[in-house]
Amino acid sequence: MIQTITIIGAGNLATRLGTALYQAGLQIMQVYSRTEASAVALAKQLNCDFTVEINKICLDADLLIFAVKDDALEGLLGQLACNEKLIVHTAGSLPMSVLAGHSCNYGVFYPLQTFSKQREISFKSIPICIEASSPETLAKLKALASLLSNQVEEINSAQRQSLHLAAVFTCNFVNHFYYLGQQVVEESGVDFNLLKPLIVETAAKVMEVLPFDAQTGPAKRFDEAIINKHLKILEQQPELQEIYSFVSKSIFEAHKIPNK
Amino acid sequence: MIQTITIIGAGNLATRLGTALYQAGLQIMQVYSRTEASAVALAKQLNCDFTVEINKICLDADLLIFAVKDDALEGLLGQLACNEKLIVHTAGSLPMSVLAGHSCNYGVFYPLQTFSKQREISFKSIPICIEASSPETLAKLKALASLLSNQVEEINSAQRQSLHLAAVFTCNFVNHFYYLGQQVVEESGVDFNLLKPLIVETAAKVMEVLPFDAQTGPAKRFDEAIINKHLKILEQQPELQEIYSFVSKSIFEAHKIPNK
Repeated sequence: MIQTITIIGAGNLATRLGTALYQAGLQIMQVYSRTEASAVALAKQLNCDFTVEINKICLDADLLIFAVKDDALEGLLGQLACNEKLIVHTAGSLPMSVLAGHSCNYGVFYPLQTFSKQREISFKSIPICIEASSPETLAKLKALASLLSNQVEEINSAQRQSLHLAAVFTCNFVNHFYYLGQQVVEESGVDFNLLKPLIVETAAKVMEVLPFDAQTGPAKRFDEAIINKHLKILEQQPELQEIYSFVSKSIFEAHKIPNK
Repeated sequence: MIQTITIIGAGNLATRLGTALYQAGLQIMQVYSRTEASAVALAKQLNCDFTVEINKICLDADLLIFAVKDDALEGLLGQLACNEKLIVHTAGSLPMSVLAGHSCNYGVFYPLQTFSKQREISFKSIPICIEASSPETLAKLKALASLLSNQVEEINSAQRQSLHLAAVFTCNFVNHFYYLGQQVVEESGVDFNLLKPLIVETAAKVMEVLPFDAQTGPAKRFDEAIINKHLKILEQQPELQEIYSFVSKSIFEAHKIPNK
């Protein structure tokens, strides 16, 4: 059973996951970050030690969680002698195999959610996607994940990569469209708050209806008069205009295929 | 005071708005649609008469609500003698002035929401944007809107057009990205349901945090390794690949400007 954890990283994911683990009763042994301020802040929250030196990372924990940028992971691993320690990464787009040369017990612990340092979030409904190098390790990670969430899923590396890509579409891109919408209304002195009930309903709708069936608006019905008006409003913002055309075309193409 | 209403149109908006008005105690006199099946279905729900003939539209109601496609509105108005009847349209992108030649009492009644015929929705939190040809008409429309919603806003035609454009970004485009995300995961045999907590949290987050501050993901930090992996996965879907590049670039551009 996993009881003690070292967290490598102190960004959004490390902060939220570390906090959730700490609140679930796990003992966080140490936080590592190359940025001292981040390491200190998270260590304080998790009531633990911290280090900014790779060679001082605490390897005595039952589990080492790497929650760092993809391109930092290999460099860190290369400088640690993990040997038989249980190590996991938390990256959507890295296969589990990147850990294979560094320990004989390894896996992936990927909570599928958007995390910000300042925003507390319950892990109960967050799908935690796990993968492991052996059935024993899988069982250990499953038990740990189940302490945090009601939705623990066994997901292989290829599937996780798809999920990560889909998360970019359904979260990162979606959020950027909230941002663009805000730019549009604020330009004419209208409060962004007016759009909030629409944003909530748009998300709530696809909890019950497939996105294809939930689609509304001018692009779906190819209402050229409205589309042209909108493009005209965006005349001074060629980048927005181009995105508008592009996405409208994509919507129209998706919906003109009958019964798709 | 408005007590009786004729509804011209039987689409998504006409259906949801008509139902809300009916439930709020208004008497719907008649539904008009050129499609008989739609007219019949909505008239049945609203416990009223219907017609498919323009020259039989009931002009005796206190209010005529035009909830038809933008390009159908002028044609319909041209065939009716509204004279002094109170008429409103419900279109985001049409200025109020399109009604000016057809009656001396007119206005706009624009509920800012995504509507589907089958999905019941409470109007209480839907912003209803109103505009009117005179203070008296404005007061009447305000009173009517207040029966449905707690958020009645006086919005002029230019502002309404901005809101409509922003709604395309924050609802129609957002929903299409849910659809694209679904395509991505289903291609690798993963259940779209796994993305639902992420979709809900992405919307919930911007209720409290500005979209700019809520942004996460590879595009914001210009993580080229992940972006290139994602583009490679999308190799067989050039249209998706192009959208991915485009929106990622837009996110990166927005976030590289300090303190914007």
